Amino acid sequence: MDKKAFQDYYTEDHSHCYGCGRLNPQGLRIKSYWDGDETFTVFQPQACHTAMPGYVYGGLIASIVDCHCTGSAAAAAYRAEGRDMGTEPPLRFVTASLHVDYLRPTPIGVELVVRGKIMEVKGRKVVVAATLSANGEVCAKGQVVAVRMPEQMG
Amino acid sequence: MDKKAFQDYYTEDHSHCYGCGRLNPQGLRIKSYWDGDETFTVFQPQACHTAMPGYVYGGLIASIVDCHCTGSAAAAAYRAEGRDMGTEPPLRFVTASLHVDYLRPTPIGVELVVRGKIMEVKGRKVVVAATLSANGEVCAKGQVVAVRMPEQMG
Repeated sequence: MDKKAFQDYYTEDHSHCYGCGRLNPQGLRIKSYWDGDETFTVFQPQACHTAMPGYVYGGLIASIVDCHCTGSAAAAAYRAEGRDMGTEPPLRFVTASLHVDYLRPTPIGVELVVRGKIMEVKGRKVVVAATLSANGEVCAKGQVVAVRMPEQMG
Repeated sequence: MDKKAFQDYYTEDHSHCYGCGRLNPQGLRIKSYWDGDETFTVFQPQACHTAMPGYVYGGLIASIVDCHCTGSAAAAAYRAEGRDMGTEPPLRFVTASLHVDYLRPTPIGVELVVRGKIMEVKGRKVVVAATLSANGEVCAKGQVVAVRMPEQMG
């Protein structure tokens, strides 16, 4: 397995994201990896990431799904081109749309596992579906439509 | 205008949410209000809430939309019953689904204005649509399906 996370390949300029930038010390710094044809990340919420006491805040869940899926989109785009991540030119994706269905309250205090499935890679667009689980139970499902980063953001 | 925000009426037990709990010192503590038949909140992102340099993190946008819409759902439910917020029994909503379309990059460094529109109040469900603007330009649109909080979370 590649020990470097997708996000570790992002260029320095593009590594300040609150959700996944390795250079954002206040951020969540999520790390995503391949597992066969799927992708995954593991995240441990902090006590402050509460919704109601005992449960994880839905905005945090949306944030993890968002960054995991845009990272997965980048990885899938490299793979579709038969290239290793980190090779030039860089492929970096942003979110066009984000959808999350909250199936049940997500308990706080345990690791959350997000698994991503690449649904479509077409032109500048990649669609990624995700599940978020706690204690082996799926608590939320998400879908992200990711698009190649516009030039103006580079 | 009622100077108290929707979230100021939440009971103490339900005021720890990372997005809108007045008792969460590390949280975003967003505050939502009526403006006629619409609702609004104004939020100033911090420097750490970056996506790419110069732009606001999409997960933060999702978080603000989420909490603004669940707060709006509670306010709309009280209004539909002809009751003032804060009267018993309390009405508190959680997110069943969240959808955000990111229309353009959202500039960081300016106030964000989210306006909510109550689309449906039916039984335990309230649907709220939202726009998020920066410098008077709509940068994102969202929709939340909110449901009365399950007893288990009380």
